[in-house]
Amino acid sequence: MESLKYFFTPKSVAIIGASHTPAKIGYTIFENFVKGEFPGKFYPVNPDTTPILDQRVYPSITAIPGKVDLAIIAVPAPTVPKVLEECGERGVKAVIIISGGFAEIGEVEREEEIKRIGKKYGMRIIGPNCMGVFDPYNKIDTLFMPGYRLRRPKKGAISFVSQSGAFGIAAMDWAAQRNIGINKFISFGNKADVDEVDCLEFLEGDEKTKCISMYVENIKRGKEFIKVAKRVSKKKPIVCLKGGVTESGAKAVSSHTGSLAGSAKVYSAAFRQAGVLETKSIGEMFDVARVLAYQPKPNGNKIAIVTDGGAFGVMAADAAEEYGLKIADLSEELKNRLRKFVPPHALIKNPIDLTGDASTDMYYDVLHTIASDPSVDGIIAICLLQIPTISSKIVGVLTDVSRTYKKPLIVCMMGGEFTDLHMRMLEDENIPSYSTPHQAVRAMAALVEYYSIR
Amino acid sequence: MESLKYFFTPKSVAIIGASHTPAKIGYTIFENFVKGEFPGKFYPVNPDTTPILDQRVYPSITAIPGKVDLAIIAVPAPTVPKVLEECGERGVKAVIIISGGFAEIGEVEREEEIKRIGKKYGMRIIGPNCMGVFDPYNKIDTLFMPGYRLRRPKKGAISFVSQSGAFGIAAMDWAAQRNIGINKFISFGNKADVDEVDCLEFLEGDEKTKCISMYVENIKRGKEFIKVAKRVSKKKPIVCLKGGVTESGAKAVSSHTGSLAGSAKVYSAAFRQAGVLETKSIGEMFDVARVLAYQPKPNGNKIAIVTDGGAFGVMAADAAEEYGLKIADLSEELKNRLRKFVPPHALIKNPIDLTGDASTDMYYDVLHTIASDPSVDGIIAICLLQIPTISSKIVGVLTDVSRTYKKPLIVCMMGGEFTDLHMRMLEDENIPSYSTPHQAVRAMAALVEYYSIR
Repeated sequence: MESLKYFFTPKSVAIIGASHTPAKIGYTIFENFVKGEFPGKFYPVNPDTTPILDQRVYPSITAIPGKVDLAIIAVPAPTVPKVLEECGERGVKAVIIISGGFAEIGEVEREEEIKRIGKKYGMRIIGPNCMGVFDPYNKIDTLFMPGYRLRRPKKGAISFVSQSGAFGIAAMDWAAQRNIGINKFISFGNKADVDEVDCLEFLEGDEKTKCISMYVENIKRGKEFIKVAKRVSKKKPIVCLKGGVTESGAKAVSSHTGSLAGSAKVYSAAFRQAGVLETKSIGEMFDVARVLAYQPKPNGNKIAIVTDGGAFGVMAADAAEEYGLKIADLSEELKNRLRKFVPPHALIKNPIDLTGDASTDMYYDVLHTIASDPSVDGIIAICLLQIPTISSKIVGVLTDVSRTYKKPLIVCMMGGEFTDLHMRMLEDENIPSYSTPHQAVRAMAALVEYYSIR
Repeated sequence: MESLKYFFTPKSVAIIGASHTPAKIGYTIFENFVKGEFPGKFYPVNPDTTPILDQRVYPSITAIPGKVDLAIIAVPAPTVPKVLEECGERGVKAVIIISGGFAEIGEVEREEEIKRIGKKYGMRIIGPNCMGVFDPYNKIDTLFMPGYRLRRPKKGAISFVSQSGAFGIAAMDWAAQRNIGINKFISFGNKADVDEVDCLEFLEGDEKTKCISMYVENIKRGKEFIKVAKRVSKKKPIVCLKGGVTESGAKAVSSHTGSLAGSAKVYSAAFRQAGVLETKSIGEMFDVARVLAYQPKPNGNKIAIVTDGGAFGVMAADAAEEYGLKIADLSEELKNRLRKFVPPHALIKNPIDLTGDASTDMYYDVLHTIASDPSVDGIIAICLLQIPTISSKIVGVLTDVSRTYKKPLIVCMMGGEFTDLHMRMLEDENIPSYSTPHQAVRAMAALVEYYSIR
């Protein structure tokens, strides 16, 4: 999938349909380049050559001097074939067609035409009817929503491939707010050319992508998908959310993309066969992807739970059993070592309840002690920061434990502003944190599952 | 449960163990009163009568002039019986014992002693080993965490009763951040006297409480609980999260509170019998409580889904089927009316997909039209605010629809800062909003379930 590299590392980009009107799609995309840090050349194209944002405008792609690797097309659908033909003649390698008005509204022949043009010139096409791509490393951003509406996430290790553009941008905005990093986001819309199989193959070789998450409604090339996913999932985890898993949902898919959703059971079986982790909701997909992208392989399914709130320990234990994890048996020798660090009323069992008298130092000692013990494969650290004896240094403590031992560490903290701030700080250290014990344990279970099926 | 009123509307309060040392429990509780708006009298009590926060300190409760309705005790456990005896002699009606060091650490006799003293004087006791109460209406706040760590939620219609103090305060802080209102929070700790049954009976008659949510690990008075909950749940919804529903969780409960968790099946059966809605996680409990507190009775289980992102419609449809809701059949006549408001490529089925070209006006027309149609019992409005054609006026539109028709309206919006802001605005209008279609649909299903079992 070498050919997909031009979508992310083009030396030069043409924005065809760059608009003079602020807030229009073709304006915002061009503005992303003007205000952004894209290191290559970029050219706005519009028959009206009045400058846009003080930049020289080209009447057509043929008027641009030098090579163009990537063209981003945001012109009305009927004009797209003509423009695409010009791109082909101009030697463009990759095209993102943002414009809608193709198969999704029944204009099947128009979509076939762009497929033919793409093939004729050997151009790869993302779209039509899509949001395109976002890549904070390579500074490519075709999302046509203003920054105040749609914050862009920081650099990270999760790549997200979405059949739905709306879901994709909502997810980017959501991730940005939570300081969750993204490597590549690809919205492929009608997938006239580039589809989920191509994306998988491309991301397989993309070193910075540590976890691939996908939202799909239908997969046309089923056999290829299974074959490729099987290979890729041995190298890096693939997390998938399938829309249209019920009769009602499948009907909605048929309206939404004009495609058949297919039987949920068939998809689930295919995912299992291909080593793809299937999740059931948006929240679950990101919860799972975050831990898979950043946390190491657990040696087994025996977890230790450390908490400063007994009830959160109880709920984590409930969730552990629900998700097939084992509560590690702590040896008497280990318990005796732990008892030295805590007040007499702390509960040295598993979950380990430091109680409301927990301190940052106690977490330091207890976490280091249990993380170094071979009976524990992974740790859920629950830190309710409402307790004033826990200082902001807890972030450093958790980071230290996470780096010292090659064991998964997942954090749970629930609260408001102060807590959210610390969750964002943890995200910078690649330690995923969750508001509820259920989410934290679900994520740990996914980590165990991935490495056991791989 | 008239006797519990003194916990919330005392005319005078003694804070026994008010401390001179900032950040100490007895300091923070007293500070809450000094900085707060409690309309009655309050007296700090400490043998060291050096003023605290410029207020006169009383050496003992007997030294306080005039009546004392409520005493808040935060002194070391061994001193509690003596202090409690003085409260009894002084005619105190209600006592909150914050101090730990009783049954939870094996000091069963000490706990029995305070029970005896309470009974002897007819005093009601919350605690020991608890966070006490928080009531933004009556300005009572015994939470001993500073405001920057633990934001206090605004006034609202949800009351939350928690066996776990840590969970309680994490939940208050979480709710505050999301602008979710609370009526009364009660952390009853070891429940030497006041327990979940008493709380239910008290909240039954509390007009401002529209939904009761509970976290319990064990219920000692099982029969009374079922009897009372059965009666209360006919008047207002009760949402319950039970900690220790698995073997691992039950073991953790036994460590945490020294009590037996009991069989999950027995509890589930009891909850069903009592009309209590059982939820499986923290997130789910609040998702459900919010809609039950504020949204009206649905006439049935037929919902309409309106979205500006097709995939979110698909996922909502999937969730609807999963949770037993029906996707309403829209009549041709209704569809024809709807078509007038939307562009030709919008999908007028159910889910209704306004597409990325959705506007605030479109939502206004479409929502009013479907809300007024008898074929629709409830509406899930998905508004992805990344789309710039949707203005902040969407909050007014949703509020207008919610107030005009007596039908449940639940909102789904996923995103970052801009989206979160609008979610908080909706909360002020008593319209619950959720990040994911699954959560929104789960909440709607709970509403349908509550009114069908009632």
